[in-house]
Amino acid sequence: MDRAHTVKSFDEEIHQLRSLIGQMGGLAEAQTTDAVDALLRRDADAAMEVVARDGQIDALETEAEQLAISMIALRAPMADDLREIVAALKISAMLERIGDYAKNIAKRVPVLTQAAPIGPAVIIPEMARAAATMIRDALDCYVDRDAELARAVADRDQQVDDFYNSLFRSLLTYMMENPHHITPATHLLFIAKNLERIGDHATNLAEMVFFSVTGQQLGDRPKTDNTATIAPEND
Amino acid sequence: MDRAHTVKSFDEEIHQLRSLIGQMGGLAEAQTTDAVDALLRRDADAAMEVVARDGQIDALETEAEQLAISMIALRAPMADDLREIVAALKISAMLERIGDYAKNIAKRVPVLTQAAPIGPAVIIPEMARAAATMIRDALDCYVDRDAELARAVADRDQQVDDFYNSLFRSLLTYMMENPHHITPATHLLFIAKNLERIGDHATNLAEMVFFSVTGQQLGDRPKTDNTATIAPEND
Repeated sequence: MDRAHTVKSFDEEIHQLRSLIGQMGGLAEAQTTDAVDALLRRDADAAMEVVARDGQIDALETEAEQLAISMIALRAPMADDLREIVAALKISAMLERIGDYAKNIAKRVPVLTQAAPIGPAVIIPEMARAAATMIRDALDCYVDRDAELARAVADRDQQVDDFYNSLFRSLLTYMMENPHHITPATHLLFIAKNLERIGDHATNLAEMVFFSVTGQQLGDRPKTDNTATIAPEND
Repeated sequence: MDRAHTVKSFDEEIHQLRSLIGQMGGLAEAQTTDAVDALLRRDADAAMEVVARDGQIDALETEAEQLAISMIALRAPMADDLREIVAALKISAMLERIGDYAKNIAKRVPVLTQAAPIGPAVIIPEMARAAATMIRDALDCYVDRDAELARAVADRDQQVDDFYNSLFRSLLTYMMENPHHITPATHLLFIAKNLERIGDHATNLAEMVFFSVTGQQLGDRPKTDNTATIAPEND
């Protein structure tokens, strides 16, 4: 990424844009971890702080978008520079969505603190750790333009999907055992789905980095949220 | 939108970009309707056709993105033109996601045909109609740059949210009545959530049109998916 621009402040702006993306990535990872932490500790107040902090990611996205558009408008960047700015726009949109998923997890915490803890939920923290690490590593790929790490991050999506598929089945069984479990288990299903989507977005981000570094597509990943095909067992 | 450009083919390209967005919007609306139709008719084959057709929307998004980037790179558009091209990029990303939600609905149809029909599901077609109409109207706002219609579309999101909140509660109750209902009702919960998200995206699209026409924000909508706070009733 050593490019000498005749106009010095273009490099400063690119640097600023990357820094905004880096801040968003750090926040998105922290929000994911903090939301699940609040769930584990049954801490409704901490969860509401996560919800409140989502506005910070949104504000950074707006800032990144305005900077990107003004760079395009005022500097008419060519080829590689333009591609990088457009990639930054897309990456910031993805990170904003990861923030939304973390917020959605946090929003369900207060109601879950009103119900007894749920057995299958023990998978959630591991799943969250896997997803949060994917975000961090995807951001590292972006900063270092590391195609091999990007491929490894994309491969790890399978792990998050496996957690999700397993949790989906456990929660259905758990609901069938006792109708008192249905409402809390439903909220956990949506939390698990949010984590699965966070993994998908980290993967998309890694795929985008891979493409921008190598000019090649990583290839279509198999879709491994299989839960859409889980059939009623009791009919 | 009557702007005379010195370079004739810039207008042709803008026209082509709008036309791609129009095609994507038409497909996204049709996919939503067709997915729910397949659910109602319990037609797994029709559902799989919806899943297969999602690739068409993805291909159009790629085409729109490539066109937009080449327009920015080769023509260095200023002010209004640049804003329109960036808006088109964002709108095509939203429509691609609406397509994904429709596909996710369709993917759950085959398994639902294996279970007995579910009472509360009668709300789904109405909810789908409301969401599909929002997509169509949001696209009309985009084409006609109609700020007032955009505001009306955004207001209608409440209706889709009301359907969702009502369905969420009904489905939980339905699951509690009989454990045989749990698996199919869970799939319907995710289908309803997908429709609720489609409504959100149509709303975002309408808000973006409102902003690009008036330069004003429509203001923060209240978030009215209240289901995150639905408490366990049986504990």
